[in-house]
Amino acid sequence: MSADPSHPALRRDARLNRERIVEVAHDLFARRGLDVPMAAVARHAGVGMATLYRRFPTKEALVGEVFSHQFDTCVSVVDDALADPDPWRGFVTLVEKVGEMQACDRGFSAAVATAFPADVAAERALGRVTELIDRAKAAGELRADFAVTDLALVLMANDGVTTDSPAATRTASRRLVAYLLNSFRAEHAGVPLPPPAPMSVLPV
Amino acid sequence: MSADPSHPALRRDARLNRERIVEVAHDLFARRGLDVPMAAVARHAGVGMATLYRRFPTKEALVGEVFSHQFDTCVSVVDDALADPDPWRGFVTLVEKVGEMQACDRGFSAAVATAFPADVAAERALGRVTELIDRAKAAGELRADFAVTDLALVLMANDGVTTDSPAATRTASRRLVAYLLNSFRAEHAGVPLPPPAPMSVLPV
Repeated sequence: MSADPSHPALRRDARLNRERIVEVAHDLFARRGLDVPMAAVARHAGVGMATLYRRFPTKEALVGEVFSHQFDTCVSVVDDALADPDPWRGFVTLVEKVGEMQACDRGFSAAVATAFPADVAAERALGRVTELIDRAKAAGELRADFAVTDLALVLMANDGVTTDSPAATRTASRRLVAYLLNSFRAEHAGVPLPPPAPMSVLPV
Repeated sequence: MSADPSHPALRRDARLNRERIVEVAHDLFARRGLDVPMAAVARHAGVGMATLYRRFPTKEALVGEVFSHQFDTCVSVVDDALADPDPWRGFVTLVEKVGEMQACDRGFSAAVATAFPADVAAERALGRVTELIDRAKAAGELRADFAVTDLALVLMANDGVTTDSPAATRTASRRLVAYLLNSFRAEHAGVPLPPPAPMSVLPV
């Protein structure tokens, strides 16, 4: 029996199923990362695999839906950062806010890596991130050898910071981000850095 | 039938089993981290669960055996660092070498967290690490607000750095470690840091 979208009761069931799947998946991704199998999502949501795959044909589609709110927040954080008249403060705001979002949600950075690049909004956001970086460099505040992929490095490093307590994780994450931001200052660019790795977390 | 240690053929079988288990476990831990279940180790090693648990009564025992060589290397890295007459160069050597070991082996930092602290050698090593930190601070080269747990932070952050290619992972890890070391310099300690989190990767 397939769902009939013209039937109100079935439509309502389908919507509730969808909401339940997204909620359960968000909880699982946040606690255990994106490696959680689709079968576990279906089991925890109390739906069959057929229903799960009817709502979300691929895991990427589910990840995209689960993190759509955070993606939107990310884009607005970039906009806010660019709106700041102080180039360095704008850059710091971006790195700190994204770091915070990530420290609260283990699946988020992995989601950025797998689902964000496919999104049109992500390309626009990346253009603005590049603008933010260039502006902070032009102001002589961000070191000239800072690479866009260094933001990916911050995300990955921050993702590695996990402790038994969510509060301790947030504290540790804040300290790591502060150490890195301190090193990104042009005035602290003394010793030459090893080259950046050929990689992209944000689409490059 | 239980193994009779006085019987040469059985002793040899037991030894080969043990070596095979350690080798297989090392490979699995390095590629997938310490979350690999004991059942997967047994399956890949071609032994039964009973044999696996007879050789290694707990997962911690297996982890300890698998990484015993790296633990020894860690301890000797600390000794080498302290033998360096230059306090800052000694500190940098420690952070860089441990970072490299970690970038080559995904299971290693997790092993440090779970198995290393139980070891007597680890306590001695920690005493020497603290000496190395104090010495670099006294020389005015390491920032005064550097905490021992910041080494744990380096390990965790570095552990988060993974890419599809082992070479790119090593490159990215080297750049992250360079950024952090740059921030650890006393001369770059401008802005106050957020406090360290109450945590221990190395035993504190």
